[in-house]
Amino acid sequence: MKATQVTIPAEALLKHWQGHRGLTRRVIEAFPEDQLFSFSIGGMRNFAHLALELLDIAEDGIVGMATNKWVPMNELKHISGERVPKTKTELLQAWDKVTEDLNTYWPQITAERFHETTVVFGQFEQTVLEAYHYFVDNENHHRGQGYVYLRALGIEPPPFWDR
Amino acid sequence: MKATQVTIPAEALLKHWQGHRGLTRRVIEAFPEDQLFSFSIGGMRNFAHLALELLDIAEDGIVGMATNKWVPMNELKHISGERVPKTKTELLQAWDKVTEDLNTYWPQITAERFHETTVVFGQFEQTVLEAYHYFVDNENHHRGQGYVYLRALGIEPPPFWDR
Repeated sequence: MKATQVTIPAEALLKHWQGHRGLTRRVIEAFPEDQLFSFSIGGMRNFAHLALELLDIAEDGIVGMATNKWVPMNELKHISGERVPKTKTELLQAWDKVTEDLNTYWPQITAERFHETTVVFGQFEQTVLEAYHYFVDNENHHRGQGYVYLRALGIEPPPFWDR
Repeated sequence: MKATQVTIPAEALLKHWQGHRGLTRRVIEAFPEDQLFSFSIGGMRNFAHLALELLDIAEDGIVGMATNKWVPMNELKHISGERVPKTKTELLQAWDKVTEDLNTYWPQITAERFHETTVVFGQFEQTVLEAYHYFVDNENHHRGQGYVYLRALGIEPPPFWDR
């Protein structure tokens, strides 16, 4: 018996990712500026720090997915210390720039490229499609943590289903 | 120009979902029994309650995806009060039963079925594939919240990348 194959337009995968990024943006916006850069629970990173990880992964990840040129893990901007936004506005501007990057690079990924094995950030061997899923899952995971921070601060988070 | 189409074996989508469910199972296991049913932050649900939502969505969701017979939202077991496990063991047993359900029903979903529009839990109109993504995203989101609970309790959560 032939295995069932599911076909998804690449465009729908991009839309799904951007939908998640739009929601994460609203979570960043929902934080009071001081708490964004300071509030944490149980020794975890503050939400600005978590958002910087997501930002770097999207920014350098889309280039790696499209061109196979990967920034090594330890040179990601938030890890190397190259990117340290001081304000919510600065963080959101960087976020919006990466939204454009995704739209620019995404159409360069061919149907074959999605199934090629690549070494993500010079470290994790997986297909481009698996990398895509990991990036989206990781954003979902950390944004869920931001929801708890907001609730702990007495702030109603944006609805999860609205993407 | 023809739009890029990405082809994914249905089996890989199931494996992805089961990988996430396996990780959520380890998060349930990581909670001390009393905290599983009581600990919360900012007025949120305890992790057992969140896990019950995920359990019901998977159990009744896979039937709806495969057969188009959807349990209405308000009849989901954790909402209607039909399912109230008292112990971690009981919760994990229900979890493992649903793992089997997924393996049983999944192969019945045809390539065409993934693209059919359906009314998820009698309420949300989307394709079967979109429902799949929503279920996995929702699990990721709530499990991320469980990570914060564990950290707040001083417990190291299982690694996110291990699925």
